[in-house]
Amino acid sequence: MALENRRLAELASHDAFLQRHNGPGSDDVATMLETLGIDSLPTLIEKTVPPGIRLKRELDLDSPRSEAEALDYLKRLARQNKVFKTYIGQGYHHTHLPAVIQRNVLENPGWYTAYTPYQAEISQGRLEGLLNFQQMVMDLTGMELANASLLDEATASAEAMALCRRANKKIKSQTFFVADDVLPQTLDVLRTRAHYFGFELIVAPADNLTDQEVFGALLQYPGESGQIRDLAPLLDKARDAGVMTCVAADIMGLVLLKEPGSLGADIVVGNTQRFGVPMGFGGPHAAFFATTDKLKRSIPGRIIGVSRDSHGRQALRMAMQTREQHIRREKATSNICTAQALLANIAGFYAVYHGAEGLRTIARRIHRLTNILAQGLKRKGVSLVHDSWFDTLRLTNLDAGKIYGRALTHDVNLRYFDNGDIGVSLNETTTAADLVVLFDILLGEEHDLSIASLDEEILNQRISGIPDACQRSSDFLTHPTFQRYRSETEMLRYLKRLENKDLSLTHAMIPLGSCTMKLNATSEMIPITWAEFADVHPFAPRDQVAGYKQVIDELSAFLQEITGYDHISMQPNSGAQGEYAGLLAIRRFQEAEGESHRNICLIPSSAHGTNPASAAMAQMKVVVVECDKDGNIDLADLKTKAEKHSQELSAIMLTYPSTHGVFEEGVQEACDIVHGHGGQVYIDGANMNAQVGIARPGDFGGDVSHLNLHKTFCIPHGGGGPGMGPIGVKAHLAPYVSNHVVTPIPGVEENCGAVSAAAYGSASILPISWGYIKMMGARGLREATELAILNANYIAKRLEEHYPVLYKGINGTVAHECIIDIRPLKSASGIGEEDIAKRLMDYGFHAPTMSFPVPGTLMVEPTESESLFEIDRFCDAMIAIREEIARVESGDWSGEDNPLVNAPHTMADLMAEQWEHPYSREVAAFPTEAVKAAKYWPAVNRVDNVFGDRQLICSCPSIDEYRD
Amino acid sequence: MALENRRLAELASHDAFLQRHNGPGSDDVATMLETLGIDSLPTLIEKTVPPGIRLKRELDLDSPRSEAEALDYLKRLARQNKVFKTYIGQGYHHTHLPAVIQRNVLENPGWYTAYTPYQAEISQGRLEGLLNFQQMVMDLTGMELANASLLDEATASAEAMALCRRANKKIKSQTFFVADDVLPQTLDVLRTRAHYFGFELIVAPADNLTDQEVFGALLQYPGESGQIRDLAPLLDKARDAGVMTCVAADIMGLVLLKEPGSLGADIVVGNTQRFGVPMGFGGPHAAFFATTDKLKRSIPGRIIGVSRDSHGRQALRMAMQTREQHIRREKATSNICTAQALLANIAGFYAVYHGAEGLRTIARRIHRLTNILAQGLKRKGVSLVHDSWFDTLRLTNLDAGKIYGRALTHDVNLRYFDNGDIGVSLNETTTAADLVVLFDILLGEEHDLSIASLDEEILNQRISGIPDACQRSSDFLTHPTFQRYRSETEMLRYLKRLENKDLSLTHAMIPLGSCTMKLNATSEMIPITWAEFADVHPFAPRDQVAGYKQVIDELSAFLQEITGYDHISMQPNSGAQGEYAGLLAIRRFQEAEGESHRNICLIPSSAHGTNPASAAMAQMKVVVVECDKDGNIDLADLKTKAEKHSQELSAIMLTYPSTHGVFEEGVQEACDIVHGHGGQVYIDGANMNAQVGIARPGDFGGDVSHLNLHKTFCIPHGGGGPGMGPIGVKAHLAPYVSNHVVTPIPGVEENCGAVSAAAYGSASILPISWGYIKMMGARGLREATELAILNANYIAKRLEEHYPVLYKGINGTVAHECIIDIRPLKSASGIGEEDIAKRLMDYGFHAPTMSFPVPGTLMVEPTESESLFEIDRFCDAMIAIREEIARVESGDWSGEDNPLVNAPHTMADLMAEQWEHPYSREVAAFPTEAVKAAKYWPAVNRVDNVFGDRQLICSCPSIDEYRD
Repeated sequence: MALENRRLAELASHDAFLQRHNGPGSDDVATMLETLGIDSLPTLIEKTVPPGIRLKRELDLDSPRSEAEALDYLKRLARQNKVFKTYIGQGYHHTHLPAVIQRNVLENPGWYTAYTPYQAEISQGRLEGLLNFQQMVMDLTGMELANASLLDEATASAEAMALCRRANKKIKSQTFFVADDVLPQTLDVLRTRAHYFGFELIVAPADNLTDQEVFGALLQYPGESGQIRDLAPLLDKARDAGVMTCVAADIMGLVLLKEPGSLGADIVVGNTQRFGVPMGFGGPHAAFFATTDKLKRSIPGRIIGVSRDSHGRQALRMAMQTREQHIRREKATSNICTAQALLANIAGFYAVYHGAEGLRTIARRIHRLTNILAQGLKRKGVSLVHDSWFDTLRLTNLDAGKIYGRALTHDVNLRYFDNGDIGVSLNETTTAADLVVLFDILLGEEHDLSIASLDEEILNQRISGIPDACQRSSDFLTHPTFQRYRSETEMLRYLKRLENKDLSLTHAMIPLGSCTMKLNATSEMIPITWAEFADVHPFAPRDQVAGYKQVIDELSAFLQEITGYDHISMQPNSGAQGEYAGLLAIRRFQEAEGESHRNICLIPSSAHGTNPASAAMAQMKVVVVECDKDGNIDLADLKTKAEKHSQELSAIMLTYPSTHGVFEEGVQEACDIVHGHGGQVYIDGANMNAQVGIARPGDFGGDVSHLNLHKTFCIPHGGGGPGMGPIGVKAHLAPYVSNHVVTPIPGVEENCGAVSAAAYGSASILPISWGYIKMMGARGLREATELAILNANYIAKRLEEHYPVLYKGINGTVAHECIIDIRPLKSASGIGEEDIAKRLMDYGFHAPTMSFPVPGTLMVEPTESESLFEIDRFCDAMIAIREEIARVESGDWSGEDNPLVNAPHTMADLMAEQWEHPYSREVAAFPTEAVKAAKYWPAVNRVDNVFGDRQLICSCPSIDEYRD
Repeated sequence: MALENRRLAELASHDAFLQRHNGPGSDDVATMLETLGIDSLPTLIEKTVPPGIRLKRELDLDSPRSEAEALDYLKRLARQNKVFKTYIGQGYHHTHLPAVIQRNVLENPGWYTAYTPYQAEISQGRLEGLLNFQQMVMDLTGMELANASLLDEATASAEAMALCRRANKKIKSQTFFVADDVLPQTLDVLRTRAHYFGFELIVAPADNLTDQEVFGALLQYPGESGQIRDLAPLLDKARDAGVMTCVAADIMGLVLLKEPGSLGADIVVGNTQRFGVPMGFGGPHAAFFATTDKLKRSIPGRIIGVSRDSHGRQALRMAMQTREQHIRREKATSNICTAQALLANIAGFYAVYHGAEGLRTIARRIHRLTNILAQGLKRKGVSLVHDSWFDTLRLTNLDAGKIYGRALTHDVNLRYFDNGDIGVSLNETTTAADLVVLFDILLGEEHDLSIASLDEEILNQRISGIPDACQRSSDFLTHPTFQRYRSETEMLRYLKRLENKDLSLTHAMIPLGSCTMKLNATSEMIPITWAEFADVHPFAPRDQVAGYKQVIDELSAFLQEITGYDHISMQPNSGAQGEYAGLLAIRRFQEAEGESHRNICLIPSSAHGTNPASAAMAQMKVVVVECDKDGNIDLADLKTKAEKHSQELSAIMLTYPSTHGVFEEGVQEACDIVHGHGGQVYIDGANMNAQVGIARPGDFGGDVSHLNLHKTFCIPHGGGGPGMGPIGVKAHLAPYVSNHVVTPIPGVEENCGAVSAAAYGSASILPISWGYIKMMGARGLREATELAILNANYIAKRLEEHYPVLYKGINGTVAHECIIDIRPLKSASGIGEEDIAKRLMDYGFHAPTMSFPVPGTLMVEPTESESLFEIDRFCDAMIAIREEIARVESGDWSGEDNPLVNAPHTMADLMAEQWEHPYSREVAAFPTEAVKAAKYWPAVNRVDNVFGDRQLICSCPSIDEYRD
């Protein structure tokens, strides 16, 4: 029977995806095992993974599908989504993603497989893209500074609230004002955050802003049902009262509306989705966050800055990043790590391609169509709730039932308010023909309106929904970058030029410990730009999103089986968000159990800084558990602290395998200890790639974990986002995951607030993870894990003669990554981990993770997708670099002038007339034959971080400066 | 009203495609006009285009659609095509294009915008891809040599026939043998060609091969209805009789079948479509052409060879190309210019990705499924016509009507023979589940067959449709290239590495005269990989291809309006093919008019070599008409010769604007002269980009023209193919264009044979041209032409101070291209056009067309898509090069060692420890600031053509050689 099934499976498909996903072929596996002196993969796993936690069976998943089959199947699911013309608005709009950007950025692995630009020298392309994004946001908001994107408008608003509290030294109140016309999902997230920060929220008409003492206030601009309020008097009043002001603004509206920065706002946030990024049932899109200059050191997320390189040439870098959790850890009021780099780049390129003129054309057209709609409706006696608008009208006293029916027959979604009002938000894709349909729907087919004559009327009478006081008069996007790339040919070349500056997975392995830079297979990526997934509004009626529901349900079932949890919440749209959501589930559960006093969170000293920050945001007190010299949790210390805090013990946060890349033997005992004291166990899923198919956190003690779908489950890193951080929970926590105010989630307690703007986070990228699991199947996933472990052990073995390898398990193996200690070398030679990281660029590689979890080390994670060929190429490079270091140690090369401290080398270096280094040009740039075969050139020399920190410039430099 | 329409148009869409397609913005136009001293674009056109031929109105086309609208509209058309599971076979099969190849080659402008690799140094990536293709073909066919693809299997067979005649010196007979089981479309094309070559065809059972004296023979392997014949005795017999043998083979079948080369075939041809290239309603796909070594100097098309560069390092190049028409011109028996490079690369990469093992898995699976189908049918008493098969069964004595009905309900296409037999061809995508459906269709639903037990039976009884004598036993694809890239990550890096070696439109303008390298817009490209266009069999029933029909009809209507012709024939799949088809239409018309004796074709001396070759293939006698010193047709000479040959005058072939890039004033007179003597006028459409919207060949005298859709109408060059060469004809010629034996074309005389394998040529790329015209509209097309002329005149103006510009019109303007004379410079300095071409690579540009139409010149065509920025960058480079030449002239640099003769410079050059040239490294590789901003590196130094010609190696070199 088994044989027959296998034979039938062969007849079903000839091409096994796992052979494409995994790097090593069977010959390679044999070679690597031989090097390790281990007889088989099962033996390697036995030596590495403690027997007590090993899964003794294959995962119970469907048999794997080929790429073609999975795409066929998914296409059928996709077609269950209905792509209606959707005028719901509420922060999400149809948009035209320019095809040249779609194909050459969103669908191009040169862009989407890149890592976060920590290594500036090999990231100048996307850094320039993000700088464009910042400039665009600064120009449109009128603010002095913008970051390189946040997760969504709702969390950006929550970050703004937290920043107000941190920055407002005058007002001691813990109360924050929210205008009652902010987007409902924003309010939902604010409520969640405020609750655990201990803030009180006042939700009231914007005019009541200063009725009570508040440390900050959030206004929506235009309001969620379309009204445009003159912000100037409100912001003046707030300033006088010492209130810090946040404005959540519509990015397209800002093209025509007076920019909040000029009116005195302290913070402006919003979403750039409608700048070319598909709605995707809620995400991913890039939110923006802009502030005044004086808040620059407190801004959350990443900021790209202009600095210079070691030769004094201009160079970009991440000037600031994710500081809260690293600097303040358990006092942090933000845990954000990632951004939405790929989407921010797309929105920025949209602005580059259209320029100010193009954006004005678009925004004016949207507004003109809205004026026509308003005029026609008014003429027919329809009441508009507001007398101002940019693109959104709220209509009242209509027969909502009839309109609803007519809308459905036209495949149109409107917004239906609880009180029977109707909302209509127009967008870039709306045409005059669409207006005719809208009139038909709203008025019935028997009207006699002419678009042309209404338009004429508006033109003649100078009718506008934008009050004079709110009309924008200032310029924007005046930088040459926003003017030069107006033809597709020029735009294409610009995009390719930037792409080619960056090192991505298309060039070489990116061996980043804990970041799992594996294959992002093309077949996984193809569906995300299908209209059936891309053009769906997150608040579309449930019966229009059956395809999404099925993908989410199936993916949830897969992840439950993989993790051993009972339920998956797809809402968190980053790993840090997942941590926060998971801890909230624990807190809510304990509260429901009458144990709301439990507020201690145990965290090992080796934990990533985000863990304590998340705990702090969940209003927990962090107690640090010590680690032993091998990096393992000190179980005795854990026992002591658990006992000491037994009554208040809420949870422990563990990472498994540990951040040191080891399957700790004591993990079950650690979980048992915490459970024994009534605590819950949070297992950080960052290292899930070492466990899939081999061990399940839900089996060995976890109550909740987040899963980094952008690590283990193949969502690409996108050059620094998007990510997805859904959480798996045991049944008792399932009612306490995040809910959503607009689209409630079945089975979740009503009062569980949202953590993200959309109910299912960045839903449009879930098909990637779905595809990965569907195509790999149980055996494929297990083999991938085994090969990830094999690859890491092979690297450890090849390098250990040259560099000390830290932290091995009890049988001398590592998990899926290994840590190389550079400290002894540095003492002997002066060459440190950064020099090695930069020198690797000359060899064509991205550096491993530097100084995490241990300062002075490099952490290497090859993943299963790298072939033996590539791994050997990397090891050869590392060994060659060790030999170079030896020449510095021996004095053959001076400590001040050698290829390591001078790394990376650029084309410009090599052109020098005089070459006065003790090593040759060839050693500098072509140290091995492999490099000659395919040279990647860093765009700049080593970037000067100190200079960049001192002179923080986060806007596009003038073209002249580029030339310098 | 006009105002209202304009305003309504604004409401319909905000983004005009013409602003994206055209490079210069309005400011740029003003700048350029000022440089020219001309007050407006209309004035420029008046000065340039003779008034008599100018179109005095705007073209009558739909108003332009935005990119989004055009894609929406086209999607609706696409959905009118029905994507059935199609088992028709006959040379076309469903296939899985691996997603990594689809996204990173077929959908990647880095691949599809590249030009034909005439400039080897900047084309090493696609040259390697094509070398892989050749190696794959050689291995699978067992032949010693293969070319880099031909247009389709039918024309490849026709080329094989012609080659047999050229090469067979022993047999004088003009008779060619064709086995009666060759593909019907192949026979159709053979009949056409044979008729005009004066060959007789014998179509008979293969066994009758030597019954008569024939110079060559074509066998199909397997036969068109599936039979596998042991070729060995037939080929032996033929050899003994002095008959040259051609085998048209199925590329997938060759994986399991004995390779014809080992059995003594002289030529093996076929289609590589089923190696990952979508059927696309007939094309484009890459045909292959393989021969014995002794035919290597006669092989048609292009051959990639391994040579070395000036530093002795291995380098690839086009070793041979399109020689017939250049060498033999009016005696040529082939006019083929182009290839299907993009598709050949895809098929080659398909083989690289699967390797021999993967291909065997695929082929065996197809065969195993066919065995199961045969076994099940036999068990149910169905008669099979043949007792051997690879993937195709011909069934007889069935109720075809019922089967037809059942097939339709299952969305399945079978092949229906005229005699009621049924054909079924399985393919790579067929699964066991599909077999169940096929049994249901063929047997009715009431059968009890089990796939698994049939499979078991076949396994146990060792049943196979392949006779033992025909089983392949030899290895293939043993070269490392076919073994290393088995994971998607490795494949992706390989594809990107090759892409990055090549200069394409993504880097810089490619200013090739007469090749019109304009923007290939993403929106034009997107539809071609939609399943509704890609997965359609060319012989699918007419009611399943309504979408294609609509696209073809609309595009035909557009092209009729643009050209002034009455009818368009879409069949010719290259420009040369179009010439041939157009001349055949003339000949058939004249024959129908009782004037079959008219056989003189007048061709100006300046014509491209393909013109006389095409005429020769149409059995015409070429009479050359002289040109005057300005390159214009000598009207007096024309008059004399027309008079002299008045009775026999068939046609004249003109290019307009002339190959010298001038709108000749006398064109109407020339047409009148020919018409006056009863001749027809063929106007070569190569330079149509200078006329669209301004002049129409059908208005000023043309009876027929071919249109290079890959020049004027935006089909990308694909690195050397595909192209499309439809012809426009006046009504009297319309009945005489090419018909098709399998899918007859309405309105065409039945006896007009085909010129291409598919009725509508490379139909799947027609949406590109459709999209271009639909999005540009009448005004956009006219403006594009005007800007193309403006750009060319601006270049001529900027360069004329530095280089003599040849051939201007009567008002001192050029058309859409200009010719720069290098001869005086060469006399003075020794620096020739080739040195300039190679030096341009150091500046990051592709060379202009060299030495055509005039030796010692460069012909520059910027097209409308290049911006002023880019054009200035190019002019700056040309002027800087002129200054470099001056330093050679002055003796500052020696004639033997200067940056021109040493160009191009590679990274390796610059690494040299000792730099002994009289110019610096910086001058060598970074001669301008613009180059520093975005350096493109040629992969090799100047390629040694003489060496490559002497040592023709057309297979993949060993990896060791690569390293040398």
